[in-house]
Amino acid sequence: MDFITEHSKRIDQALQSLAIPESPRNLYDPLRYFFTMGGKRIRPILTLLAAEKFGAKSQEALPAALAVEIFHNFSLIHDDIMDEAPVRRGKETVHKKWDTNIAILSGDVLLIKAYQQLNTYPEKVVKQLHTIFNQTAIEVCEGQQMDMDFENMSAISRSSYLEMIKLKTSVLLGCALKLGAIIAGANETQQQQLYDYGINMGIAFQIQDDLLDLYGDPSLVGKRVGGDIIANKNTLLMILAKEEANSSQLLSIKKLILEENTEVKIQGLLKLFEKLQVKEKTEKLMNSYYKTAQESLMKIEAKSNISALWMLTNTLINRSY
Amino acid sequence: MDFITEHSKRIDQALQSLAIPESPRNLYDPLRYFFTMGGKRIRPILTLLAAEKFGAKSQEALPAALAVEIFHNFSLIHDDIMDEAPVRRGKETVHKKWDTNIAILSGDVLLIKAYQQLNTYPEKVVKQLHTIFNQTAIEVCEGQQMDMDFENMSAISRSSYLEMIKLKTSVLLGCALKLGAIIAGANETQQQQLYDYGINMGIAFQIQDDLLDLYGDPSLVGKRVGGDIIANKNTLLMILAKEEANSSQLLSIKKLILEENTEVKIQGLLKLFEKLQVKEKTEKLMNSYYKTAQESLMKIEAKSNISALWMLTNTLINRSY
Repeated sequence: MDFITEHSKRIDQALQSLAIPESPRNLYDPLRYFFTMGGKRIRPILTLLAAEKFGAKSQEALPAALAVEIFHNFSLIHDDIMDEAPVRRGKETVHKKWDTNIAILSGDVLLIKAYQQLNTYPEKVVKQLHTIFNQTAIEVCEGQQMDMDFENMSAISRSSYLEMIKLKTSVLLGCALKLGAIIAGANETQQQQLYDYGINMGIAFQIQDDLLDLYGDPSLVGKRVGGDIIANKNTLLMILAKEEANSSQLLSIKKLILEENTEVKIQGLLKLFEKLQVKEKTEKLMNSYYKTAQESLMKIEAKSNISALWMLTNTLINRSY
Repeated sequence: MDFITEHSKRIDQALQSLAIPESPRNLYDPLRYFFTMGGKRIRPILTLLAAEKFGAKSQEALPAALAVEIFHNFSLIHDDIMDEAPVRRGKETVHKKWDTNIAILSGDVLLIKAYQQLNTYPEKVVKQLHTIFNQTAIEVCEGQQMDMDFENMSAISRSSYLEMIKLKTSVLLGCALKLGAIIAGANETQQQQLYDYGINMGIAFQIQDDLLDLYGDPSLVGKRVGGDIIANKNTLLMILAKEEANSSQLLSIKKLILEENTEVKIQGLLKLFEKLQVKEKTEKLMNSYYKTAQESLMKIEAKSNISALWMLTNTLINRSY
């Protein structure tokens, strides 16, 4: 996957060389800090690959790729405040290292800086780029609000959960791809097919996240197995389990959720999930999104072949568990 | 000032009729709440007047006017969190009525909604509108950060203070006017003259705010006289007093700042300010910005006469004290 490493490095370099003023330091130091935190840079890479796919040079798509990555960073800084997260990528979060006010304002300025990148394009595309970007940005806020609302709800439907993960994360993948397609002059059908690919791949990816948390190989996942269960997080596994359970099984689930011994809790729920075939049903749902994503990608008639995007998808989806 | 009332009503109506989704309620209810809070709507009125000045119908400038007002509301919601303000315009602030997380996210979505308004214009102006809007939005964040930084500083120079009020408030007035001018097809010189008018008028207006707090007629100002002194706020009056004071006077100022009896504190500082002619010096500075604003406005060659803008300025500046 050399092209991924290569593109990722270009994004890192471009972020580092953005003109960030020296002062006010409390506004701009957090930006410099956040840009050096690293990350997989998947979203901006999608923008570059989409542009290449339709015959543009990836260089042309770099400002839009940066807009997507900067927007993503804005949402992480604000989400970290809301989630009271002390650490991100092994480093202190902005609101911990500085304070909440500084994190709010640095996030705000990042969002505006994303728009500045978008506004570097020629008049004839700048409006199209803003249209999909604005729509996506609003949806990401809606997804974050739904996620926060879910924390205080015991019964969440499968469809609400899928809508939440679509808004909170998938639409930005679709947007990243569509921006690249617009810049490369793809037609509307092609833009839409690529966007659909991003949405479905994103949902599959998020479902996989839920699976990995409980069934992943801890040495590969890098997190404690069952962390979502310990934190009483609503995941697709839990939602499907509640949907499939009969009344006595539902009672057991509710009792286990209140169980204080985490080992008893995890083992008890694992046993119930096995009886209810929750893992298989979740995998089936994930695979259906994965397949739809694949089909959207196959439909696209484009100048270059689809291999780069497809390889990236497979890398993302084939995380071991 | 019927045209002001009339324009203000149009802005209110346009805000009320914006399509705000029903759900997620915790994201969108705060927006509906904030839009009904009222306010003078000075910024969007400036956009409408600027457009009319260069021969456009104010209707054409309405989306840009809304963008400015929505942006202003975004910044108020986030500023209220940072300032821990419990009340705005006699009503609970968003972070008090809901919570900080909801106020952060509602503010974010408002900022994006401002961009959506801007993106309704034809391709050939949309990029120009974004350029000045992005620049201004970033400057407003810088101004807010400077203002927060100043809270923890005892020595602030006159020039830093003037730079802060310029960034925090005046640039948005300049931007509001420039957007209207761009939409109406004014040339770059005209745009710049109108922008300069906004900047200088804004600084004069902010200086007047400092004056009104201490020397205003409380029945007209609607606030307690000397509120800034009681809150130990850095104002231009205090900065000039410290600049003008000799070493023994400086010592008196520092002692009075620590004085716990507010009546003794205010009367003591008032006496010192009188000796140092702080009021007169502040008024002189305010008038110099006011005059520069007037000159910028006079220079502009435009289709309609300047009376509407000038009348608005005079209304703003002639608040009694």
